[in-house]
Amino acid sequence: MKIIVEKNFEEMSKTSLEILMGMMYEDKHSQIAITAGSTPALMYEMLAKNLKDKAPIKDVTFYNFDEIPVYNEEGYGITMAQLREQVFVPCNIPAEQIHALTVDNYKEHDDYIKSVGGLDGIFMGLGADGHFCGNMPGMTKFDSKTVRIDLSGDIKKMLAAPGTEGPDYFVTMGPASVMAVRKLVMFVNGTKKAEAVKNCFFSEVSEKWPSSILQLHPNFTLILDEEAASLVKDLI
Amino acid sequence: MKIIVEKNFEEMSKTSLEILMGMMYEDKHSQIAITAGSTPALMYEMLAKNLKDKAPIKDVTFYNFDEIPVYNEEGYGITMAQLREQVFVPCNIPAEQIHALTVDNYKEHDDYIKSVGGLDGIFMGLGADGHFCGNMPGMTKFDSKTVRIDLSGDIKKMLAAPGTEGPDYFVTMGPASVMAVRKLVMFVNGTKKAEAVKNCFFSEVSEKWPSSILQLHPNFTLILDEEAASLVKDLI
Amino acid sequence: MKIIVEKNFEEMSKTSLEILMGMMYEDKHSQIAITAGSTPALMYEMLAKNLKDKAPIKDVTFYNFDEIPVYNEEGYGITMAQLREQVFVPCNIPAEQIHALTVDNYKEHDDYIKSVGGLDGIFMGLGADGHFCGNMPGMTKFDSKTVRIDLSGDIKKMLAAPGTEGPDYFVTMGPASVMAVRKLVMFVNGTKKAEAVKNCFFSEVSEKWPSSILQLHPNFTLILDEEAASLVKDLI
Amino acid sequence: MKIIVEKNFEEMSKTSLEILMGMMYEDKHSQIAITAGSTPALMYEMLAKNLKDKAPIKDVTFYNFDEIPVYNEEGYGITMAQLREQVFVPCNIPAEQIHALTVDNYKEHDDYIKSVGGLDGIFMGLGADGHFCGNMPGMTKFDSKTVRIDLSGDIKKMLAAPGTEGPDYFVTMGPASVMAVRKLVMFVNGTKKAEAVKNCFFSEVSEKWPSSILQLHPNFTLILDEEAASLVKDLI
Repeated sequence: MKIIVEKNFEEMSKTSLEILMGMMYEDKHSQIAITAGSTPALMYEMLAKNLKDKAPIKDVTFYNFDEIPVYNEEGYGITMAQLREQVFVPCNIPAEQIHALTVDNYKEHDDYIKSVGGLDGIFMGLGADGHFCGNMPGMTKFDSKTVRIDLSGDIKKMLAAPGTEGPDYFVTMGPASVMAVRKLVMFVNGTKKAEAVKNCFFSEVSEKWPSSILQLHPNFTLILDEEAASLVKDLI
Repeated sequence: MKIIVEKNFEEMSKTSLEILMGMMYEDKHSQIAITAGSTPALMYEMLAKNLKDKAPIKDVTFYNFDEIPVYNEEGYGITMAQLREQVFVPCNIPAEQIHALTVDNYKEHDDYIKSVGGLDGIFMGLGADGHFCGNMPGMTKFDSKTVRIDLSGDIKKMLAAPGTEGPDYFVTMGPASVMAVRKLVMFVNGTKKAEAVKNCFFSEVSEKWPSSILQLHPNFTLILDEEAASLVKDLI
Repeated sequence: MKIIVEKNFEEMSKTSLEILMGMMYEDKHSQIAITAGSTPALMYEMLAKNLKDKAPIKDVTFYNFDEIPVYNEEGYGITMAQLREQVFVPCNIPAEQIHALTVDNYKEHDDYIKSVGGLDGIFMGLGADGHFCGNMPGMTKFDSKTVRIDLSGDIKKMLAAPGTEGPDYFVTMGPASVMAVRKLVMFVNGTKKAEAVKNCFFSEVSEKWPSSILQLHPNFTLILDEEAASLVKDLI
Repeated sequence: MKIIVEKNFEEMSKTSLEILMGMMYEDKHSQIAITAGSTPALMYEMLAKNLKDKAPIKDVTFYNFDEIPVYNEEGYGITMAQLREQVFVPCNIPAEQIHALTVDNYKEHDDYIKSVGGLDGIFMGLGADGHFCGNMPGMTKFDSKTVRIDLSGDIKKMLAAPGTEGPDYFVTMGPASVMAVRKLVMFVNGTKKAEAVKNCFFSEVSEKWPSSILQLHPNFTLILDEEAASLVKDLI
C-alpha cells in the first residue's frame, strides 16, 4: 500500500488523474475499470479537458465494476448511465472501447476479463461504511468473485426510482475479482470518510470494513485529501 | 488462484521444481524465499540433482521467511540450519546469494526487501491447521508485516531443544509481507492436509485458516497431490 | 539476456521445458507461441509425458509464429501440421486453445495478439544462419511486424512439396512483433550452431544475423548445450 | 511503441509529467533515470510545483544516465549539475534518493542497477541527429552496455569549459542498458526534431539513427508535439 496525502479535493483529483493517464499511455491495450459517483467527478472533468484537443485515445477499454438494474430512458443501468454522463460522452469514448458489466452477463464477467488478459487497473472510491465497488459490510464475503447481491430494506429503498419499490438486486465485482486486478487505485476525500480510512487501512483486515482487504494487494495506491487523512496523520 | 492437481508427492515435487527453475532462469537477479520442512524435501533433492553438473546459478538470492532462535553448533537458527542442510549446501549456493531473516534483523526485513526491488517469489507449504510461514491460527493477523510472535504452551515445548524449555518467540514474514511478493507458490501433499485445503481454498477468507488469505493474491499457484485434493475433487 | 549452458541436448530440452511449464502454471490465461522443428522435439516428448496423467491444462492458448502455405491432407500448413504432430495431438490440446497464424489472417495478427493482452512467451530455435522464426538474413528488417515474405531461388525449392515448384511466400512474426512479447526463450544445440551463437549473441546487433536483435530484449533467456556454446565458453 | 501527439510543448510536458508521476506513485520503491536538458525543462518546473506542498516523495530513487567529467565548483559533472539545478534542488529530493552514475563507477553501473531490481523507467529526449542518452550516431553500437566513449573533434570542443580543450571522454548507459529498463519514455518537441522522428520511428532500425532501436522495446511511449510529428502525421 502506497499512501499519498494531498491538501484538498482538487489535488487529490489531479493526482488520481495522473495515475489514470499514466496507465492509459502504457504501450499496450489497457483494460481499466472506473468508478462513477461524486468522488471522481472533478477527476473526470479534468480528464475531459485533457483529452479535448487530442487525437482519440485508441488503446484503452473502460469497464464499470457494478450495475444496478434501474434503467434510464436509453436503457442504461444506474452505474453505466452515470459513467456515460461523467466520462464516456464528454471524453468521446467510442462504444467499442466500453465494456459494460450488466445483470445479464455478470456470471461470465470474470472469464471475460481473463480472456482479454486481465484488468490492468481499477479506480475506486471508498464508502463511509468502508465499502468498495458494491461490496457492503454485512453483505460481502472476501472470497466472492463477480456476484449478484439481493437487496432489501433501506438500501433497496435508497436505490429506488421515484414511485418504485427499488431494485431487488445488483451485481458487482466481488473482493476476489478486484484483488485479481494488476493495480488498484482508491481516492478518498472529506472528513466524513476519515473514520473509514482509519478502520480500513490502519486497523485489522475484516469483512466488517470491506476495503480493509485492499491493504493486502501487492500494488495498491491510496490517495487521500488532508480531511480524509485527518485521523491517521501520525501513522503515515 | 491457479490449482494444479498431481497424482502423487513425486509429481507434486516435480511441478513445484519446474516453477522454481522457471523463476531462477528469468532474465534478472531473482529474489526468492523458500520453505524448509518435509513437503519440499523431494523438490530440493531434485533441485540438487538438476544443478549438479552445471555452472553455478549466479543471479538468484535465496531467503528464509521465518526463524526460530534455537541455534545449532554453527550458530544457525532452526529454519536456516534446515535450509542449509536441504538446499544451500547440496546445491552449492554461495553465502553471498543467501539472505537470512533473523531475530536480530526482522524489524528491517520489509524495508530490506523493498530495497532490492521486492521478492519475485515465495515457495510455501501448508500446515494441517492452515498455517503458512509462521502464521498460525489464533496467533496471526492478516495485516501483520514481518513480526515477532511470542510463544507459550504446547508450541513452545514442541520447538524446544532437548533439555530446554523452548524458545520464547520466533519471527516470520506476516500475511501482509507475503501478499506483497510478486508470485506465491504453495505445494501440499497427503490426506492429513485435505481438510486444510478445503478450509483454506474452498471456503471463506478467515484468520482461523490463515492460508485462506492467499486466495486473494493476483498471482498464486497451488499444487496439490491427489490425496491433498481428495475433499475438493468436484470443485476444481 | 540470461544464458544457461547445459551439458547436452537432453538437459537443454529439460531446462527449456521447465521454463515452459513455469509459464503454463502462471495464475492467468497464458498466451504462448512455440516453434516446430527438430530442436524442440525432445522437449515436446517430455511435455507430452508430463501432461499425460494430468487433468488437461486449461488456461493456456498456443500460437504458431510462422506458416508456409504448403498444405497436408487435413488442410494444415507446414508449421501447424508439424506442431499438431509434435505437440497438440500428443498433449491433447483442444482446438479452442490453439490459435493459428495463417496466410489469410496474418495482417490482423498483431492486433489480435494485442486484443488478448499480448503474448506472455515465445519459444524459438536458432538457425545456423542466425534466423529466428521466419526472419532470414538478407530478407528480414528489424522493424517488421507480422509480414508476408516472398520466396524465390533455393529457399523456395527447399520448401517445395514433391513435384511442385515450392511456395511463393510464407508469413512470419517479424522482429518487431517478437520483441513485443513479454518473455523470449531460445534453445540451441549442436556444434553446427556454435558459429551462429557467437555471431548473434557475442557480437554486434545486425540484420545480417537476425537473432542478434534478441540480445536487446529486457527478458530473454538463452539455453545452450555445450556444443552450441563451444565458441563462447570464455565469454559466459 | 505507443505514440502520443500533443498540440504543443506545454501539453507534451504535461503528458510526460503524468507518466512520470504515475510511476512515482507505484506501490513500490521506484527506480527512475531522467534526462537533463531543455526538452524536460518545463516538465521539471511542473514537477516542482506538483511536489511543493506535499509530503516528500519517499519511495523513489533518481538516476542520471550519462555524465561528462567537466566539473562545477561543487564537484558535480555536467549532467548531475544540471539535474540538481533543474530537479533535485527545486523538488527537495534528498541525497539518499539520488544515485549518480559517474566516470568512476560506470563499470559497475549495470550490476548496481541489477542489484536494486532493475530500473522501472527512463525518461529521455531525442537529439536532432537521432541520439538518445549519450548514444551518438557513428559512435554507438547497439550491443553496448554502460560505456566510456572517447571524444575528439567538434564534440570535444562543444563540451569544453571556457579556456579548456574539452573532456577526453564521457560515460553513458548504452543501448543494451537502456533496452533493459522496464519502461522507456521519450518526449520530443519542435520542427528541428521532425526529421529525426521520421528517421528513428518510421524507418528502419539502424545505428545511423540510434534511437531507432527503441521501436523494438516492448514498453516504449513516445510523446511528440505537433511540430515534432509534422513529417509523420499521416503515419500515426
